[in-house]
Amino acid sequence: MSHLIAVLASCLLLLAPLTRAEGPLFPPGVRATADGLMAAALDDALALELVTSLSTEIGPRLAGTAQEARARDWAVDQLKKLGFSNVRVEPFAVPLWVRGDERAEILEPFPQPLAVTALGGSTATDPEGVAGDVVAFSSLAALEAAPDGSLAGRIVFVDEPMTRTQDGSGYGVAVGKRRATAYEAERLGAVGALIRSVGTDSHRFPHTGQMRRLTEDGGAGGVPTAALSAPDADQLRRVLARADQVSVRLVLTPQLLPPSRSGNVVAEIPGREAPEEVVLAGAHLDAWDLGTGAVDDGAGVAIVVAAARLLKALPEPPRRTVRVVLFGAEEVGLVGAKAYAEQHAAELEQHVIAAESDFGAGRIWRFDTAVGQSALPTTAAIRAVLHPLGIGPGSNSARGGPDLTYLREAGVPVVGLIQNGWDYFDLHHTPDDTLDKIEPAALAQNVAAYAAFLYLAAEVETDFRK
Amino acid sequence: MSHLIAVLASCLLLLAPLTRAEGPLFPPGVRATADGLMAAALDDALALELVTSLSTEIGPRLAGTAQEARARDWAVDQLKKLGFSNVRVEPFAVPLWVRGDERAEILEPFPQPLAVTALGGSTATDPEGVAGDVVAFSSLAALEAAPDGSLAGRIVFVDEPMTRTQDGSGYGVAVGKRRATAYEAERLGAVGALIRSVGTDSHRFPHTGQMRRLTEDGGAGGVPTAALSAPDADQLRRVLARADQVSVRLVLTPQLLPPSRSGNVVAEIPGREAPEEVVLAGAHLDAWDLGTGAVDDGAGVAIVVAAARLLKALPEPPRRTVRVVLFGAEEVGLVGAKAYAEQHAAELEQHVIAAESDFGAGRIWRFDTAVGQSALPTTAAIRAVLHPLGIGPGSNSARGGPDLTYLREAGVPVVGLIQNGWDYFDLHHTPDDTLDKIEPAALAQNVAAYAAFLYLAAEVETDFRK
Repeated sequence: MSHLIAVLASCLLLLAPLTRAEGPLFPPGVRATADGLMAAALDDALALELVTSLSTEIGPRLAGTAQEARARDWAVDQLKKLGFSNVRVEPFAVPLWVRGDERAEILEPFPQPLAVTALGGSTATDPEGVAGDVVAFSSLAALEAAPDGSLAGRIVFVDEPMTRTQDGSGYGVAVGKRRATAYEAERLGAVGALIRSVGTDSHRFPHTGQMRRLTEDGGAGGVPTAALSAPDADQLRRVLARADQVSVRLVLTPQLLPPSRSGNVVAEIPGREAPEEVVLAGAHLDAWDLGTGAVDDGAGVAIVVAAARLLKALPEPPRRTVRVVLFGAEEVGLVGAKAYAEQHAAELEQHVIAAESDFGAGRIWRFDTAVGQSALPTTAAIRAVLHPLGIGPGSNSARGGPDLTYLREAGVPVVGLIQNGWDYFDLHHTPDDTLDKIEPAALAQNVAAYAAFLYLAAEVETDFRK
Repeated sequence: MSHLIAVLASCLLLLAPLTRAEGPLFPPGVRATADGLMAAALDDALALELVTSLSTEIGPRLAGTAQEARARDWAVDQLKKLGFSNVRVEPFAVPLWVRGDERAEILEPFPQPLAVTALGGSTATDPEGVAGDVVAFSSLAALEAAPDGSLAGRIVFVDEPMTRTQDGSGYGVAVGKRRATAYEAERLGAVGALIRSVGTDSHRFPHTGQMRRLTEDGGAGGVPTAALSAPDADQLRRVLARADQVSVRLVLTPQLLPPSRSGNVVAEIPGREAPEEVVLAGAHLDAWDLGTGAVDDGAGVAIVVAAARLLKALPEPPRRTVRVVLFGAEEVGLVGAKAYAEQHAAELEQHVIAAESDFGAGRIWRFDTAVGQSALPTTAAIRAVLHPLGIGPGSNSARGGPDLTYLREAGVPVVGLIQNGWDYFDLHHTPDDTLDKIEPAALAQNVAAYAAFLYLAAEVETDFRK
């Protein structure tokens, strides 16, 4: 750590004369410190070590399971070891759905297996499964237009593709079918449903993901519903084009167990002058059970913890408190996000700004904000500091990450350090979410951006509220 | 078909004056016909239609199964429909090994599942599996050096990587561990074995493939052995680096069933002047059970059938007979290849030359031969005809495809139309061997090269023998 301080100090000395003219809103020392943090981040191995440790020593960590509890223990250990203050778990209750057997096959006319995975919250079939003729829909809208009860005994197949984009904007559209198909199929009288995976790859990995949010007293309802990998959806489409009648068997035996416990892991760098004012850096600790949660969201955990650790290494802490929140139970319906907003309702007024890293490990290329007009000069100045990392200006309609939803709705200003997600939905919610998919240099660029952002937001006196 | 004839005829007229000077070994009309065949192939959709049909309507087709029998029926239908002569199945017996449950997990210290698949011919564990501490070896050579009985109760892990190459030369080296690990582990007293997949990708797909050849009266022996996907092998390596003791459970329940039937599907274009002289074009019809056998070897089936069909469309057949052989039971140990060599032993002297397409659907970039010195001017002239397709000169030590092994050993000359296999072992023997991985333009280039080669080899009077 002393080496790090020396590096930061020398950066400060070197950069101060150069930066005075560029960052009029920040005193020269502040700008130099931000530059020094970025330089240090690009050489820092901590983020890679953290995501390696989390994805190797814990791996899959579905909300409410023993694996997720182990991930909380891991996080508390790491955060304490790194010297953070007020390290704690803030527990909450969570419904517990666990995967069972899952398989599907074309029975007629061309018998062969199909690669499927149950959607999170899906109801179960009998152990022998359900079988029926397949009725295909090219979109969720087409499915919604079908009349009640018109598909008795059938298996619905929604073959709507997802558009690949750098900013992930294809997801919001595509996820509709994942959320709604089970219930629409039930309305139509179907015995089961298949969707083309919400994803952009063409590998034989089905993508899981939550349907409707589970309730504590029961499941999400709907018919048993699974995702097909993209090559399997293509295959089923081709088979349907070659035969009048195509029957499929679907076996899904997930279970809804009694409600379990989850928790958010919180750690702080108490502010030097305004400790009650909180700059929040979030990520989520839970991950789907199919992969090892390296990209979603081990990378985010690593990025925000490594960035905050750089701030801890400064000669003195920033003015405001920097709070790292590693949310639990994000994937199953933002359960940790809701718990945090409820448990901290009284202090949300003093959450001055928040950011979440939950879009993998691609490079950040855009800085979005959702702040008051009077704060725009400050966020523009922050963006100027981030510019050497390849980060350009964005909009003032940031949504922040998913775990910031309730905070944003409660008036907490948010920013979006927007990552390049071109490849993100190739891996998202699949078994292929593994450590090898993370590019170390891109991960370090993320740490650099978060470190500078958190430092500057915590150092200034700006009120970011609308 | 009449349109095709018109295209070929016009190509012949157009190209004849240009090619007279370039191909002194071939009469101008022959060279022009070869050029016309290549031009027609690049515009021909048949190969893509065939591989689409085979991989969609049949899909997986493991040797000896009902799926492989359906593939033979499919092939006979297609070949008859396309107008080939002497279309027939030449049956033979084959051992029948079928996959069962397969899963593995790290029990301690970091519990999590591992993605595995049984190697072809593996023995089975109990339904509850075997468990033991893992002992890792960085290579097969290191495993072979371990003393007899030194790993009682352990699980062997051979973590030898495979080198990615354009010519597939990494495979011959890497496949050694797949063939030998089960028996070496047995010698050491281990209860099970894991290998890093023989493959070059970093996706969560384990690669299957045959161990030792199965005998008709029993299995291949050895301990139960599975392949780990590359990310899982990396994960297990990391876990071993972080813990003194790592225990794994392995469940594999494949079954060795009573011997079954397979067959080679044969079709011909009888020669115009020397029908007893055979130019053989091969591929294999069987495919591993995990994927749909699009790349391995649906592509090869499509390439040789589509190429031969172009020859059928010529105004008159070539001098020699062109024989298409779609081998059965290649993957489980060249059983069809052996049966063919035995059943045709009396006429192998009259197999003038043979080629097999069994390396995916990448572009052909090199023309290897294994012919007598006196035939080299002819093969050089054939290579010159193929040059516009981007095909360069190779060696005179071709091995031909795997199904040509016994023919080559019996003295049949072979050529290698060598494909770019840079990505081939990303998919090879995995669930991800699906139609979307085939690039139609590259497939057509293959058809063009086979069409020209088959035509020229069947038209000339050259004796290719050593």
